[in-house]
Amino acid sequence: MKKQALGPCVTFFPQPATLIATRNAVGQSNLMMASWAGIVSKTPPTMGVSLHESRQTLANVRETGCFSVNVVPVGLVDAADFCGIFSGSDVDKPAAAGLHVNDSDKGVPLLTESPLAVECRFSREIELGDYRLILGEIIDVLADVAAFGPDGAGKALAFDPLVYLGGLKEYWSLGSKQGDAYRCGLKYRK
Amino acid sequence: MKKQALGPCVTFFPQPATLIATRNAVGQSNLMMASWAGIVSKTPPTMGVSLHESRQTLANVRETGCFSVNVVPVGLVDAADFCGIFSGSDVDKPAAAGLHVNDSDKGVPLLTESPLAVECRFSREIELGDYRLILGEIIDVLADVAAFGPDGAGKALAFDPLVYLGGLKEYWSLGSKQGDAYRCGLKYRK
Repeated sequence: MKKQALGPCVTFFPQPATLIATRNAVGQSNLMMASWAGIVSKTPPTMGVSLHESRQTLANVRETGCFSVNVVPVGLVDAADFCGIFSGSDVDKPAAAGLHVNDSDKGVPLLTESPLAVECRFSREIELGDYRLILGEIIDVLADVAAFGPDGAGKALAFDPLVYLGGLKEYWSLGSKQGDAYRCGLKYRK
Repeated sequence: MKKQALGPCVTFFPQPATLIATRNAVGQSNLMMASWAGIVSKTPPTMGVSLHESRQTLANVRETGCFSVNVVPVGLVDAADFCGIFSGSDVDKPAAAGLHVNDSDKGVPLLTESPLAVECRFSREIELGDYRLILGEIIDVLADVAAFGPDGAGKALAFDPLVYLGGLKEYWSLGSKQGDAYRCGLKYRK
């Protein structure tokens, strides 16, 4: 396979397409599209989200000490993209995009329309150039009841998560299941 | 939408399916499946990978100061899964799974069969319980020439990246394109 060098850039995929839900000190909600988000530890369960230092979401997390990472379903692709283009300091993004934020029983703002929300308590901030890696201890994960089958297993296409291709700047849906983790590779065991 | 609480766990998706390529101090190659990997900064371009402290890959990164994050194409799902189940301290995973590691002209080990490899210089390690978040400055990104169209644009289905659904423990392919980032959301602009 012949390869070409793209240089030191941030082209990498697939990435999750998420909306980070926060409130500012006076309770106004905000939603920010983020694809630089993921699990960073299981002990304790911890989520990492990297944000530009200028983001309203970062100010909100510092002020209120909590946030949620909400999986975006395919049907909300346009609304989520809107929440990545504009800043919450300029526009009421949930209202403009027809999205809603409600608070969990632990007081963490959540995207009402998300099938999978990770509730986080802000625990640490790491400076990386103009970006800040925000770490949040996961205090709960809330999932759409309708996305689970009668066997209790979550159904991928019921969650219908949007996939972001960083560098290509494209959003994609899931296609077909290719294998079960920790199982399909066992065939290579000697 | 009625939601159920899954508790403080690490169920979150979509995630990238990657193979981390490293060598130990005497040059033996290793490949580790990782889905807790992603971009954390653009200034400088930085990749973050979270690993259990017991991993051979972590020892290799500390010893040699470099690693690469390689996107797994759908066709390698079984081989990649194998590289997530077993440890490089017990088995020569590349050989067992029929995969190959070659060095870039900067001396960074790469998965030969990957259509998109992010070359990293180890820059920082952050302790998170039993896990270590490894940060690497991105020194180059290498992409399969055949995955670019005549217009110079990367074609998602030519890269054919595998998507991991953490919590569901399933691997999926991409389905269909849903929108262009920074464009499809403009319809909500007032």
